[in-house]
Amino acid sequence: MKAEILSIGSELVSGQNLDTNSRWLSQKLSELGIPIVFHTTVGDDLDDNVHAVKAALDRAELVLVTGGLGPTQDDLTREVLAKVADVKLVEDAVSLVHIRTLFQNRNREMPERNRVQALLPEGAEALANPTGTAPGVWLTLGVKHIAAMPGVPSEMTRMFDEQVKPRLLARGLGTGVTLERRIHCFGAGESAIEEKVVDFTKRGHVPEVGITVSDATVTLRIRATAATHAEAEEQIAPVATAIRERLGDFVFGCDDEELHNVAVRLLKENNLTVATAESITAGLLAHRLSSVPGVSVHLHGGVVVYCDDAKCQQLDVPSALIEKYTAVSEPVAIAMAEGVRKKFGTDIGLATTGYAGPDGGTDGTPVGTVYVAVATAKETRVQKFIWGGTRGEIQSRTAKLALNLLRLRLESVKIES
Amino acid sequence: MKAEILSIGSELVSGQNLDTNSRWLSQKLSELGIPIVFHTTVGDDLDDNVHAVKAALDRAELVLVTGGLGPTQDDLTREVLAKVADVKLVEDAVSLVHIRTLFQNRNREMPERNRVQALLPEGAEALANPTGTAPGVWLTLGVKHIAAMPGVPSEMTRMFDEQVKPRLLARGLGTGVTLERRIHCFGAGESAIEEKVVDFTKRGHVPEVGITVSDATVTLRIRATAATHAEAEEQIAPVATAIRERLGDFVFGCDDEELHNVAVRLLKENNLTVATAESITAGLLAHRLSSVPGVSVHLHGGVVVYCDDAKCQQLDVPSALIEKYTAVSEPVAIAMAEGVRKKFGTDIGLATTGYAGPDGGTDGTPVGTVYVAVATAKETRVQKFIWGGTRGEIQSRTAKLALNLLRLRLESVKIES
Repeated sequence: MKAEILSIGSELVSGQNLDTNSRWLSQKLSELGIPIVFHTTVGDDLDDNVHAVKAALDRAELVLVTGGLGPTQDDLTREVLAKVADVKLVEDAVSLVHIRTLFQNRNREMPERNRVQALLPEGAEALANPTGTAPGVWLTLGVKHIAAMPGVPSEMTRMFDEQVKPRLLARGLGTGVTLERRIHCFGAGESAIEEKVVDFTKRGHVPEVGITVSDATVTLRIRATAATHAEAEEQIAPVATAIRERLGDFVFGCDDEELHNVAVRLLKENNLTVATAESITAGLLAHRLSSVPGVSVHLHGGVVVYCDDAKCQQLDVPSALIEKYTAVSEPVAIAMAEGVRKKFGTDIGLATTGYAGPDGGTDGTPVGTVYVAVATAKETRVQKFIWGGTRGEIQSRTAKLALNLLRLRLESVKIES
Repeated sequence: MKAEILSIGSELVSGQNLDTNSRWLSQKLSELGIPIVFHTTVGDDLDDNVHAVKAALDRAELVLVTGGLGPTQDDLTREVLAKVADVKLVEDAVSLVHIRTLFQNRNREMPERNRVQALLPEGAEALANPTGTAPGVWLTLGVKHIAAMPGVPSEMTRMFDEQVKPRLLARGLGTGVTLERRIHCFGAGESAIEEKVVDFTKRGHVPEVGITVSDATVTLRIRATAATHAEAEEQIAPVATAIRERLGDFVFGCDDEELHNVAVRLLKENNLTVATAESITAGLLAHRLSSVPGVSVHLHGGVVVYCDDAKCQQLDVPSALIEKYTAVSEPVAIAMAEGVRKKFGTDIGLATTGYAGPDGGTDGTPVGTVYVAVATAKETRVQKFIWGGTRGEIQSRTAKLALNLLRLRLESVKIES
């Protein structure tokens, strides 16, 4: 049993866009114990596509295709599959109703062009796409299977989970199990983290432990392959426990948890409310918190105070404080956190200030210098950090620094209560 | 003349690492006017590698390989190329000296294992690797060429620029130039946009015009290959002009411009200030504006009013208005935009409200319904839209809808003045 993943799009083969779908699908197939032997990327050309699908069928039993299912003339996947299967395209009534309904729900008429999205190679099954107009295609040719999905990542991932994966399992494809546990750390660099767990990250360790850093979050990946889920879990569990013990407070979560998920979970558990005061992050901090569904009970709101006047007028930061210490300083960060807490009447105020660059900064306070502060009724904590990186990276990492400060504060709240 | 890019590594095909080399090489070959027709990724298996190289030689004249040149047992590229060329491996004396020297410079003795890195298929040329132990391989088979480079991105990019590119030019490959112009639209769906320019996007049109959608931004890519930069530009210019004329206000920018860049540029040109009032986007709108360096003169700040009380207390939205129409309504969006404009004393107030889901919404106002409003001293404009997609997509697209409303307002300001 071998699988090949085929990504279609001239924007991929030309290097304009980066293909992330193939990697995601590879991870999912690996979890099912299906080995992926090839990835192929091909542009929007009919002959090249037919060649690529035929080559894939030649060397793999399962071919997952992404892209080329849109309504426009350069979307060729339906036509390619019909050619490869040597059948004609037929209209799928259920898919057509779905596409029409999607447009109706948005108060728009279906453009005639979208009708082609309801076409399927004769004998193929449509794969439902609840959030988009492009149904997927499941095509069985003898002992081989092709699943074609949209290129839009959110539509593709949902279609794989809800439509493709059940079909793979029903057909007895995917017997072994590969499990991966990711442990996320914040507050120390990659090499400092690795020093504490270097015996686990050694090549050849079973289970395999890798370490990567992304936007200041350091992640340890523990990977185990076994016959059953329970056996793989048995390999992972003791290593995960040992790593968490060694890394202590640096660990904030695992798998899909990000700092904002953890912060919101702690707000919920402690039944607390928060408001944000943002200078350098300019809304990113509040937006990260808002990305967690159901946060509205806990996130009352926030203020973006990008100019100094706004800091004084909106948050009652004394202008003398800014004059004396500048806007990027510990006293101003504290005043912002305390000010926004009062203004919104929340349990917690969370503030960011700093220089994102590329211009700005002073002799003693270079670009990348940031302060974050968390205020409660009891006390206000503040943290300084100097980041490297681009303007966007400095903003993103500062939002994380503030979320991490909130997390550490809330974790100690739990201990106190 | 067609090229294929082949990436080798089990960590790529398993989805553990993301392949960024292929994208980089695609961009470089495109600049030289060499069309890339396929990317292939394959794991560290000898038979699969031989199959992949042969398939690539079957359909392309130039094959660029990355990875598999290390000293360990799973590094197979040298052996694969020798098998494909049907020759034996021979030791390259110059490469061996280079590898030994590298180790000496680091005060280490060369491990015997690294000696294999000096092996080359008979008749091949070594490609110098100043920063690493793996020399590359240039192999000519009849009219076809293979260049194998290390997988380490910093070594690969330098080897391409210094060793591979000069050889391509010396052999008269890639004399042409490929230019691409991207025209970005907002405010209509992909198929509605294509209907207006369908004669250009037709298969076989010269220059080639493709259409893609990403997060509600519809992009037309015009691609031309010619002998010189000027000739390629000559092909693109009239098509770009015609497309812009047909699409009118839907076009907001080109190439690397995004909606927030255009909005900030217009704020600068008109010397205007803005403040934001965000419910559904919860800071994302202000953050997008803040991502443009030097925006602080024009973006005074904003308010995130996530709960209804905050809308009333922070922005003086009458609570009776929310009771009568709900927070997701035209009157509330207008009151928010006007309220934040007054509060910050800016020329413009920009507001968002809506249901991001997955829960929430009402019978008449489903999840995905949003209102954006832009207020000036003269007038307030408001726009309703119903988005599909995930919570994150709805938030992101709503921020774009607000930026687009701001853009359209500022463009008419220019016309009025």
